[in-house]
Amino acid sequence: MRLPNYIDNFASWKADFSFFTTIDVRFAETDAFGHVNNSVAFLYFEQVRLQFFEACGLMEDWTRDRAVHMIVTGDLQCDYFRQMKYGDTLEVGVKVARIGSSSIELHYVCVHEEELCFTGRGRVVQVERENGKPSPLDEESLNRLTSR
Amino acid sequence: MRLPNYIDNFASWKADFSFFTTIDVRFAETDAFGHVNNSVAFLYFEQVRLQFFEACGLMEDWTRDRAVHMIVTGDLQCDYFRQMKYGDTLEVGVKVARIGSSSIELHYVCVHEEELCFTGRGRVVQVERENGKPSPLDEESLNRLTSR
Amino acid sequence: MRLPNYIDNFASWKADFSFFTTIDVRFAETDAFGHVNNSVAFLYFEQVRLQFFEACGLMEDWTRDRAVHMIVTGDLQCDYFRQMKYGDTLEVGVKVARIGSSSIELHYVCVHEEELCFTGRGRVVQVERENGKPSPLDEESLNRLTSR
Amino acid sequence: MRLPNYIDNFASWKADFSFFTTIDVRFAETDAFGHVNNSVAFLYFEQVRLQFFEACGLMEDWTRDRAVHMIVTGDLQCDYFRQMKYGDTLEVGVKVARIGSSSIELHYVCVHEEELCFTGRGRVVQVERENGKPSPLDEESLNRLTSR
Repeated sequence: MRLPNYIDNFASWKADFSFFTTIDVRFAETDAFGHVNNSVAFLYFEQVRLQFFEACGLMEDWTRDRAVHMIVTGDLQCDYFRQMKYGDTLEVGVKVARIGSSSIELHYVCVHEEELCFTGRGRVVQVERENGKPSPLDEESLNRLTSR
Repeated sequence: MRLPNYIDNFASWKADFSFFTTIDVRFAETDAFGHVNNSVAFLYFEQVRLQFFEACGLMEDWTRDRAVHMIVTGDLQCDYFRQMKYGDTLEVGVKVARIGSSSIELHYVCVHEEELCFTGRGRVVQVERENGKPSPLDEESLNRLTSR
Repeated sequence: MRLPNYIDNFASWKADFSFFTTIDVRFAETDAFGHVNNSVAFLYFEQVRLQFFEACGLMEDWTRDRAVHMIVTGDLQCDYFRQMKYGDTLEVGVKVARIGSSSIELHYVCVHEEELCFTGRGRVVQVERENGKPSPLDEESLNRLTSR
Repeated sequence: MRLPNYIDNFASWKADFSFFTTIDVRFAETDAFGHVNNSVAFLYFEQVRLQFFEACGLMEDWTRDRAVHMIVTGDLQCDYFRQMKYGDTLEVGVKVARIGSSSIELHYVCVHEEELCFTGRGRVVQVERENGKPSPLDEESLNRLTSR
């Protein structure tokens, strides 16, 4: 297996995930090639990412009425290893790879019955809603992210 | 052809459409049955509906910063006559069927090379963003809608 | 509450549902109006519908390799009663309203914390994959559908 | 501007694109943050990618009935530079970056009124439908890809 450049040692990289969500592939997520369309992996990324942020108590600050901040995506990357099909029950994991002043780099993994479906990574940035400028994460947010 | 109850005479109903948009089916809109997934018809409805509202000069009022109003969907209905496939170029039409004080009933039609793919209808309601309460359309909006 | 024409008495209509699935609204399912986009209701319809067909043992026959039959959508209808938001946990129900020789009419309901979000109905038709012609449901399938 | 690692010199990299498609942002592609959801960029990738393959005469071989081959996604990467909104008209470009025996690496760019929205890259692999094994592109396909 050729590893993407954001993974040094697969076994230890994989062992480091502790936050997972279970996703049942929807029929509408498949395409005429009979498998899950490539774009859907990024919906799965977002689903586990936001559940993780919820668990860290961060989402509320970004989604409440008149919120000052929100998060935008800096970049995203996905490496596909196995076709996913309707009927598959997937375990999708996320972990913090690095925290910058206003950005968070996350890694992703997806397995179906012990088989690797995809790995991924990406960076989100906290910005001010008003002007889109990066805005540093406060200490409480940093604590919540690192304590998990 | 069994007609849905919102169509009396198909020929005259169809002849009444004058606002159309061209949509090329996206591969990601197909599913593992090899055709366009049923839910996608409603994306096509929305695409032609909002282009129509743009043409009437109504969208700006609903989508600008600090907009007071927006529109919500009251109901939607779609009757499918022909499977759509990747590669199909569709002509999707919309027309005003009725205007209430705060609601607009629209009808939809979709054809591919002279063949009927689907018909549809639905009602949108102008509401106040703040509380979701129906809000009457002003005279200017009504004029724009009826003058087309 | 103005009832859609496929519901006579809401209380008894609602009480008749016994098959439900839980759906957490995804952030990507919202739109710039801050709520779930109207088209997404039909993805929820499909999710509960196919889980119901799975539970009836019908999906396998339609989705396996070299399947002879598949199902297509005849029509769909949705009535919206309450805006859904990111963070909502929805209970979406489906029930058989009528069975024809090759078609099945299903009704749908969606509630969030006791509040009605949408109701719906629609007809699916079993067809031959090869030519798209309606194909009668066999007795076993009919038994499975009516025994639930 | 911090450049992604697949771009050496932005000006020459950008000048190298000659195949573009115009995409109008759909309202349903936005999310509750008011801009286009991150996952949608990959739908835009696919739209321009398949139009490019069509123009090369390659799609027909992958999508016709009883096709022997199809393409799967090896990996995908997107770098976001500017939020996209409903109403934006985007120019999305694709170009061949490298051709392997069974794989094609493509680069992507998206601009809105001269402003860069995103760049991207990704690899697709031709495989046999039956078993998912990589299958070399024939000489005709290679010629079509390189002659554009």
